[in-house]
Amino acid sequence: MSTTIDVPESSNVVKGKEVLVVPARAGGWKKGIAIMDFILRLGAIAAALGAAASMGTSDQTLPFFTQFFQFEASYDSFSAFQFFVITMAIVGGYLVLSLPLSVVAIIRPHAAGPRLFLIILDTVFLTLATASSASAAAIVYLAHNGNQDTNWIAICNQFGDFCAQTSGAVVSSLVAVVIFVLLIVMSALALGRH
Amino acid sequence: MSTTIDVPESSNVVKGKEVLVVPARAGGWKKGIAIMDFILRLGAIAAALGAAASMGTSDQTLPFFTQFFQFEASYDSFSAFQFFVITMAIVGGYLVLSLPLSVVAIIRPHAAGPRLFLIILDTVFLTLATASSASAAAIVYLAHNGNQDTNWIAICNQFGDFCAQTSGAVVSSLVAVVIFVLLIVMSALALGRH
Repeated sequence: MSTTIDVPESSNVVKGKEVLVVPARAGGWKKGIAIMDFILRLGAIAAALGAAASMGTSDQTLPFFTQFFQFEASYDSFSAFQFFVITMAIVGGYLVLSLPLSVVAIIRPHAAGPRLFLIILDTVFLTLATASSASAAAIVYLAHNGNQDTNWIAICNQFGDFCAQTSGAVVSSLVAVVIFVLLIVMSALALGRH
Repeated sequence: MSTTIDVPESSNVVKGKEVLVVPARAGGWKKGIAIMDFILRLGAIAAALGAAASMGTSDQTLPFFTQFFQFEASYDSFSAFQFFVITMAIVGGYLVLSLPLSVVAIIRPHAAGPRLFLIILDTVFLTLATASSASAAAIVYLAHNGNQDTNWIAICNQFGDFCAQTSGAVVSSLVAVVIFVLLIVMSALALGRH
């Protein structure tokens, strides 16, 4: 019994020295993961804000019109695309705000707190980013191919530029989703191995 | 220097006893989290397989037909719904296979390995479940409301049962997504605090 009580005390005493001595030896790969985390976050910011900007500026008016139809397509036409612009802007904002915590993880690679905070928030925003990306992808697919059974016609024949721009935005958001998955896996590895 | 080498050795010696002595004192909440993890997984299995079955059996033929149209709606009509059935079945299968690992985490609440494995796979399958759920939700929304700008008509006036069944499947899949987020947050907390 006495040994089990002694051990946490002695490890606490050593922890004061560990900060000074150990990082150069054992904390190297954790610091590497923290630096990679920071770089990947920068990439995800570019992907998320690029997706939001690309989708938000998608607007095409055809050079002819009739009395009844205006022949204009913009992201406003589809609620999934509006959702996409809003969520991608939110995700980009979160990623910018998460950079300071990522820096803290670089400076103190052994602290579990910042990583824990990041992994939980990353999971929430991964879900948000994936949902908006997938719903926009479903609409882009319909715009390209239409649907025979419901007589929903493909609009990409007429609105080629609009479709190209929204498809690019969806691809960019998928890049952000992949980076989020990498971030969570890396944080989990850094938390689990010690 | 000699103390830093001694500490991992002494903690290894104690670890053999720790399994017998410590869990009752400090490992209680970790065991609780592991048991909650197991129960939530059972709920997620029901939600995912229920969603797949509900979507997979959605099929409605209207009681009248013309020479040109058959007026039948099934999940085959939409590629997003086919994707939904396949991915929800895969997610349900993964969750069943993950139950033994969850049991291992209950038996050995201090082992990081099973939790690490689960959190990484959970993240991947969370992404898969969210993507299929969101893309199906986008199509269900279109089926309910249609889209004025592209002349995509709402089909739920005609295919009421079909729409109700697919909407139910989407709601069920969203339950699975929420449970996945909870599972990852709980695993991260159990990994990070020690």
